[in-house]
Amino acid sequence: MTPLTRRTVIQAAAMSPVLATAAAAPATSPDSQSTMNAGAFGFQHTPVPLPFDTKSLRGISEKLIQSHWENNYVGASKALNTIRARLMQAAADSNTPPYVYTGFKREQSIRTGSVVLHELYFANLGGNGNAPADLRKRISDSFGTYDNWESEFRKIGQGLGGGSGWVVLGFNEHLKLLENYWLADHATNPAFTRPVLVMDMYEHAYQMDYGAAAAKYIDAFFANIQWDTVAKRLPA
Amino acid sequence: MTPLTRRTVIQAAAMSPVLATAAAAPATSPDSQSTMNAGAFGFQHTPVPLPFDTKSLRGISEKLIQSHWENNYVGASKALNTIRARLMQAAADSNTPPYVYTGFKREQSIRTGSVVLHELYFANLGGNGNAPADLRKRISDSFGTYDNWESEFRKIGQGLGGGSGWVVLGFNEHLKLLENYWLADHATNPAFTRPVLVMDMYEHAYQMDYGAAAAKYIDAFFANIQWDTVAKRLPA
Amino acid sequence: MTPLTRRTVIQAAAMSPVLATAAAAPATSPDSQSTMNAGAFGFQHTPVPLPFDTKSLRGISEKLIQSHWENNYVGASKALNTIRARLMQAAADSNTPPYVYTGFKREQSIRTGSVVLHELYFANLGGNGNAPADLRKRISDSFGTYDNWESEFRKIGQGLGGGSGWVVLGFNEHLKLLENYWLADHATNPAFTRPVLVMDMYEHAYQMDYGAAAAKYIDAFFANIQWDTVAKRLPA
Amino acid sequence: MTPLTRRTVIQAAAMSPVLATAAAAPATSPDSQSTMNAGAFGFQHTPVPLPFDTKSLRGISEKLIQSHWENNYVGASKALNTIRARLMQAAADSNTPPYVYTGFKREQSIRTGSVVLHELYFANLGGNGNAPADLRKRISDSFGTYDNWESEFRKIGQGLGGGSGWVVLGFNEHLKLLENYWLADHATNPAFTRPVLVMDMYEHAYQMDYGAAAAKYIDAFFANIQWDTVAKRLPA
Repeated sequence: MTPLTRRTVIQAAAMSPVLATAAAAPATSPDSQSTMNAGAFGFQHTPVPLPFDTKSLRGISEKLIQSHWENNYVGASKALNTIRARLMQAAADSNTPPYVYTGFKREQSIRTGSVVLHELYFANLGGNGNAPADLRKRISDSFGTYDNWESEFRKIGQGLGGGSGWVVLGFNEHLKLLENYWLADHATNPAFTRPVLVMDMYEHAYQMDYGAAAAKYIDAFFANIQWDTVAKRLPA
Repeated sequence: MTPLTRRTVIQAAAMSPVLATAAAAPATSPDSQSTMNAGAFGFQHTPVPLPFDTKSLRGISEKLIQSHWENNYVGASKALNTIRARLMQAAADSNTPPYVYTGFKREQSIRTGSVVLHELYFANLGGNGNAPADLRKRISDSFGTYDNWESEFRKIGQGLGGGSGWVVLGFNEHLKLLENYWLADHATNPAFTRPVLVMDMYEHAYQMDYGAAAAKYIDAFFANIQWDTVAKRLPA
Repeated sequence: MTPLTRRTVIQAAAMSPVLATAAAAPATSPDSQSTMNAGAFGFQHTPVPLPFDTKSLRGISEKLIQSHWENNYVGASKALNTIRARLMQAAADSNTPPYVYTGFKREQSIRTGSVVLHELYFANLGGNGNAPADLRKRISDSFGTYDNWESEFRKIGQGLGGGSGWVVLGFNEHLKLLENYWLADHATNPAFTRPVLVMDMYEHAYQMDYGAAAAKYIDAFFANIQWDTVAKRLPA
Repeated sequence: MTPLTRRTVIQAAAMSPVLATAAAAPATSPDSQSTMNAGAFGFQHTPVPLPFDTKSLRGISEKLIQSHWENNYVGASKALNTIRARLMQAAADSNTPPYVYTGFKREQSIRTGSVVLHELYFANLGGNGNAPADLRKRISDSFGTYDNWESEFRKIGQGLGGGSGWVVLGFNEHLKLLENYWLADHATNPAFTRPVLVMDMYEHAYQMDYGAAAAKYIDAFFANIQWDTVAKRLPA
């Protein structure tokens, strides 16, 4: 927990005895004896470091990836923790109308998406971009050919150029489909989907290095894919 | 495949030899030898019947649940299939700009969400509303108490009254959190989440029986939850 | 101001002397001598009555239109006032992070849209559905024929059936175009557009009378259009 | 009309005699004798040049503003024209289901918003940043003080940092309110609002010059406001 969010939680706790326990309880050992201090309410997110040397990416500068991690991802983690603390306040306050409460839930959804998608994105970078044969086969089994897949994945990215969103190769656990998804923002997702390969198309992912040339960033993204990580995300 | 969507697919197929195979190939046996006829492109959805007697729900009329299934869910399935056929056309047409293509991907995401969430919703109805003890414990382990959970779940539903959206008790596979989510529409979802209990808050889920009284519908929903199905969705 | 929102505002006022004036000041006489008590912050909305006899609409029942006005429109007015009071609190609290503040601004935008669009919708009902010749000419000047216009307007409505949103014939003041718009929700709008004819496609506008048969509601809407009001909204 | 979009329109026209006229008719002289060739369908947008010397802005580089105009604004204009041509095709094709048609209307709304907001944004840049006294009074009349206004306007911008959207000081013509609005994207807008001052918070507006330091860009924006243009947008 960062000092900022710890302060926020302590402020919340000071307003209500019920929250004091929540703020203190570690997220990993929820105490079901108490009220409202377990994971769903008390959880606070801790940012994880980048899983690769920031100097090691080809075509994505150290400055950009460091700024991306620090300003956008760690920023989202702080925002998520603050929103979660505000939600605890709002849940404990009987004067909170449902439509005010859902306003915070909306923000929780956005920040959760940003944290989760950023972690998946960073974790599927740092590789050499060479997809192993068995993964290529899994992909071509679903898309007809591997090129069909790559072509659609890149096209979705280009369609997001100049805007914001994500491209996800995902496995829909309900429909049992491996397909590409277009995400309008952090909170958009196809229901019940396991992300397999995640590409950030927010402009902070490339403007600093490439300006408006989103296609060049997509090239760089492909050159750095950590396919071993990607392979492990696919169900057997 | 309904006659309507079959016609659409055949129209698409007629425009391009490459699509002819796609239209004919059954979704369950993708042929990786061919081009673009496997799951990601060729899949067409078949609606599943309601898993309970439409007369059996308490407080949700036969007329409403039948209309909900037929007009909203089967309608979404038809729309998904049509959009998927249009996507195949667009993918095969080199004149399709990326931002036109992503317009179809957006619709695909919305219709996919509607189909998946509706199937999960109907499948968690038809029960007696009594949550088994071990599931109550799982929930209270995360929410502090079972009442905390139910209170937040209902509050999110009330906040959606008069609008549209979904309430989902979900397990976030990345953060390992069991929490409640507010969904603005079919395409909103927290990333990498397994839906456990799904409540439809679109007005077609209750207006016919309850008018604007969303809270009464939420009571009826709780009385009909099929908890055995819900329990199986939770990871062990 | 309703008792509910007055209470909320008074609670806000109690937290900060600066807000006490705001709560008391009537929206119609902003006092530029004071701090933060003028229109942008202090305004509170008062619902306007329906401009027609609730028994007079053809094909839209008294029960439905009364519920629509009371539950959805007056409800949105109350929600807007509550959100505005919370915004005053948040603006006066230096601990409010910008991303928490914008969460409230988002809600303000949604509720403002709901209030404004509902008032425009009700005000363009209660007529006999016969468009005067000069207005028909204005429409056909832009759409080629009047039928082109009506056909597209109805088609957009049908596309929203089973979901939620609005259809608006609007005059874009920047592009000088009279065209039809599809609105995904209360907060969606083409920039700088004057709404001319507004049709509510949220399911509360028709489910109680027509169930899922949105096309029948669209017929009823057309039969009740108050074209004199519509004509006055068009720029000369 | 750019070559690209002219080609698209001609392709559309080739599919249907009814569209041939539309493609040829200049937007400024709609022919009400014909079918579907007037403004609402036949209009094609022509980009306007930047209203200031690209070297003249303080703290916003020539490279950035040139890229912003060319890639994001002219790109949006092309996309709008292509979408409008596709809409003409879809309107003329009786096989187009309403939900496919509304997919195009959604894109039309997004591209229209991008074009309009960008033109308003560029037009309110190129000045010296000094608000004239009478405008300051109009603002303080609504916000209590001018500082209240500026503080909220900046805060909304900061809340959008790292994401995308717009900040608008707008006059709501229905509620008669001068207030600040938060726009999630090009298609979000409070209904019936006249934009008065428009600030682009998409990352392409600042990343190239400031990286993630959105607050520095907001400073630069304020230093370049063309207040004379802003003043003329306010109703008397």
